[in-house]
Amino acid sequence: MRLVRYGRPGKEQPGMIDDEGKLRSLAAVIDDIDAAQLAPKALRKLEKIDPATLPLVRGNPRFGVPVKHVGKFVCIGLNYSDHAAEAKMPLPKEPIVFMKAITALTGPDDPIMLPKGSKKTDWEVELGIIIGSRAQYVTEEDALKYVAGYTVVNDVSERSYQLERGPQWDKGKGCDSFGPVGPWLVTPENIGDVQDLDLYLEVNGKRMQTGNTSTMIFTVAQIVSYLSKFMTLEPGDVIATGTPPGVGMGLPKPRFLKKGDQVRLGIPGLGEQQQEVIDWQPRK
Amino acid sequence: MRLVRYGRPGKEQPGMIDDEGKLRSLAAVIDDIDAAQLAPKALRKLEKIDPATLPLVRGNPRFGVPVKHVGKFVCIGLNYSDHAAEAKMPLPKEPIVFMKAITALTGPDDPIMLPKGSKKTDWEVELGIIIGSRAQYVTEEDALKYVAGYTVVNDVSERSYQLERGPQWDKGKGCDSFGPVGPWLVTPENIGDVQDLDLYLEVNGKRMQTGNTSTMIFTVAQIVSYLSKFMTLEPGDVIATGTPPGVGMGLPKPRFLKKGDQVRLGIPGLGEQQQEVIDWQPRK
Repeated sequence: MRLVRYGRPGKEQPGMIDDEGKLRSLAAVIDDIDAAQLAPKALRKLEKIDPATLPLVRGNPRFGVPVKHVGKFVCIGLNYSDHAAEAKMPLPKEPIVFMKAITALTGPDDPIMLPKGSKKTDWEVELGIIIGSRAQYVTEEDALKYVAGYTVVNDVSERSYQLERGPQWDKGKGCDSFGPVGPWLVTPENIGDVQDLDLYLEVNGKRMQTGNTSTMIFTVAQIVSYLSKFMTLEPGDVIATGTPPGVGMGLPKPRFLKKGDQVRLGIPGLGEQQQEVIDWQPRK
Repeated sequence: MRLVRYGRPGKEQPGMIDDEGKLRSLAAVIDDIDAAQLAPKALRKLEKIDPATLPLVRGNPRFGVPVKHVGKFVCIGLNYSDHAAEAKMPLPKEPIVFMKAITALTGPDDPIMLPKGSKKTDWEVELGIIIGSRAQYVTEEDALKYVAGYTVVNDVSERSYQLERGPQWDKGKGCDSFGPVGPWLVTPENIGDVQDLDLYLEVNGKRMQTGNTSTMIFTVAQIVSYLSKFMTLEPGDVIATGTPPGVGMGLPKPRFLKKGDQVRLGIPGLGEQQQEVIDWQPRK
């Protein structure tokens, strides 16, 4: 099952993608895709719906973050061995945990806004986990039961804010628009093996990142179990699981995003994001 | 004006503290103290109420976090020169920014729960800023206009999680119950000089921390202005502004919290918190 939220920012409606990739409205069935809807029981109920029975949505509406009210936006750093190498950082012995401000959240095709004066805004395609049930001290064996589904995340990062202005990364991770999430929340049974998903990212049509979740240092199950020992994970929390090689800062000649750049990224089966890079502007 | 939220967790009601320190109910006036209520206009309206006209609340109800729906819980690290020295860390050239998970939020007198296996849970009394209006790229001169009020925060920290298990601090900052906030939201006109507030913290009756906001490296106005260049600050966001000397890890013989310890901390004019230290337990 592929769930979406579509419509203007702050006015999104719930929807479902049918087998032909067409958008269908869930507005007559549920109010929104929120924490309550991510519970296993609620998802099982939605799964019984034949998408073909739902009204088609006309046009090409904007997609929003596929979950309303994300409480926490937690990230794992350096989780692909090749990316750690390109970042010239040692392989972590256990997951590195940092957080993105929830005000960074934005729809998958909304523009990336360059912070004022930013010179080192960079891209990071990542597999996103969306939590479905409260998780506290869960084992690796049980961890995937607490996952509602998966999505695509661009963990946009300002490298000078992240790495050159103090020891903590959060400063370069939570700027407005630095967290495109979506387009779809895909439930686990539609994923296949979550540790064998391809990831890609292009800038202006040129492939920059190519990876596969099989080379994660810490698996999805390990990450959920690990995090649940440091904080309660709540339904609707989003976890970005780290990025494969190919970020701008890792290039022989580092290359960062500039106004007008077009970013395209995705995970086959989880959908694709497209962002134009623009100057920062106030949120509408 | 001193605003509070009182009652059982998740069922808090809005209240006001009168001139004699008595709790009065605001339930007939507003639904709750949320983002909308923190707007300057809404606060001005509440200030016109004579607390003596509000119904007295009987008994001694629990206090909750004085704001409903905190979106972000942002922290400044090493913001007192003496504390940086005791932590054996260099004086920061600009504010160090990290984040606490919002699931760490808890009432000012709720117990501090030791994470399972924790050996280095530590205390940090801090001045908390509560944002009242959306702040984006605001100047230092204008910054205080965006503040709804001030409160007390205990930035509880697990030092081994924070410092010995990877480079990022968030892991040791966001455990459940690590964010007591309150009891009061005090509006700026009742504060006097926000850069001349005493802070104190005791463990089992013994004074551990003694400080004054006059020795902050970065002032409240500088912090709000600075953060607003890295993320949009929203009404209800809480900013913990760093701790003065006297944390457990800084003692000649480091001393950490253990089950049964009693922590008392406060800022005269902003109220006092009291926490018992217990083993972790699931949230009710």
